[in-house]
Amino acid sequence: MMRFVVLTIFPELVQAFWENGIMRRALDNGTITARAINIREHASGRHRVTDDRPYGGGCGMVMKPEPLDAAIRDARQREPDAPVILMAPQGQPLSQSLAADLAEKQALIFICGRYEGVDERVVGKWVDLEVSIGDYVLTGGELPAMVVMDAVTRLIPGALGNEDSAKQDSFSHQRLDHGHYTRPPEFEGETVPEVLLSGHHDKIARWRRADALMRTLVRRPDLLDASSLEREEIRLLEKWRLEIERLISRPGSRGFDPPPGDG
Amino acid sequence: MMRFVVLTIFPELVQAFWENGIMRRALDNGTITARAINIREHASGRHRVTDDRPYGGGCGMVMKPEPLDAAIRDARQREPDAPVILMAPQGQPLSQSLAADLAEKQALIFICGRYEGVDERVVGKWVDLEVSIGDYVLTGGELPAMVVMDAVTRLIPGALGNEDSAKQDSFSHQRLDHGHYTRPPEFEGETVPEVLLSGHHDKIARWRRADALMRTLVRRPDLLDASSLEREEIRLLEKWRLEIERLISRPGSRGFDPPPGDG
Repeated sequence: MMRFVVLTIFPELVQAFWENGIMRRALDNGTITARAINIREHASGRHRVTDDRPYGGGCGMVMKPEPLDAAIRDARQREPDAPVILMAPQGQPLSQSLAADLAEKQALIFICGRYEGVDERVVGKWVDLEVSIGDYVLTGGELPAMVVMDAVTRLIPGALGNEDSAKQDSFSHQRLDHGHYTRPPEFEGETVPEVLLSGHHDKIARWRRADALMRTLVRRPDLLDASSLEREEIRLLEKWRLEIERLISRPGSRGFDPPPGDG
Repeated sequence: MMRFVVLTIFPELVQAFWENGIMRRALDNGTITARAINIREHASGRHRVTDDRPYGGGCGMVMKPEPLDAAIRDARQREPDAPVILMAPQGQPLSQSLAADLAEKQALIFICGRYEGVDERVVGKWVDLEVSIGDYVLTGGELPAMVVMDAVTRLIPGALGNEDSAKQDSFSHQRLDHGHYTRPPEFEGETVPEVLLSGHHDKIARWRRADALMRTLVRRPDLLDASSLEREEIRLLEKWRLEIERLISRPGSRGFDPPPGDG
């Protein structure tokens, strides 16, 4: 079982996330538990202020040390062994393998700060791991924490309806996923690739691997490297190369034949 | 003004997002409008089913073409000029510059499918752009659409309290952000870097640029390349290299001096 604890100034947002989809199902079937701690409730004074202006000037606000420190201490009392994860743009980029590592833990504590700044002294005191969901800037850590919880939860045995599903995904093998089709067989004149209706499991599997490779090659060549290619994939790539060469090396095309008049 | 239209089977989740933080503020001050369309309401039959099993077999479900098609048609009638964006792991990776491009539009339509599969024929018919928020797998497109809306909204003039803030962020210059500190000046024995209390604007700016460069160098060297270095950064890097060389080339250490007894 996985226990999530989330420190946030927007507990309602995180709670709405837990009431839908996979999180709801995983909570209902006891695969996970989830608790939000409102950082504001650990702030003192009538206004329960959680942020303040940055030393050194500049715009944007910084999350104050004391209320956050008290909220983390509260979380750590409930979960003494859980790593404290700060969602921050300068963190380690989330990947499918990091999600798998986190899914092995018993509990995780997430700090959702203002994404632009948490006082460094609290980071130094408590934070075990900083995680970023990508190279873009958001207003707070709540959406990033929800993204990590979703990616982690679906890898926990029993959380998804069908456990095999998580293994066949995009990125599990550094390939994008193949195309998907469902009924009807014809939609506005567009049919389903015939092989998918054939019932030949081997052919279907080969079609899907080829489709996944082609999509990755065209859309995300950065994911491919020579050492990760399977023999079947190398054969496909050689076949595609030959087809491309045949297309662009026809007489008169540039690059393969000498320009006319040069001979 | 930016108008968001979101197609989803979990409208409550997206609506909770709009009721908090920056989205709430931007809605209140008229910088954006936001509407969720429930794909399920466009499904027929007593059970209003929106997904079905994949052709060719395998686990996981695929979003059916008809209900999604009807929901997109509804969205397009409201926003005839808005690009249709499918949140999908095989999409173009979200970056700060893609967020800036999207922030220039008048309206955006997001399709939140099951993240594992939408019938390809609907994709071919309607989708202008597929966007991925990172190389990891999620259960649905809702969180990714919320991430894009957050990143986009904070770039729209007037949406943030202080417009300058967006310009000084992580990734705006391919550097991670510098460290942040706020009151109190001493927290559990830890003080604030003295320069930040000095009031010297130039020194503070230099400290922040150096801190940002050091963090990027240590945590995300992949973001740095030689052609993007400013002269001041090159000077800093040379200074740090000398300090490192001094540390590791002291007599008796390996790699710089001949091993004892070889002379």
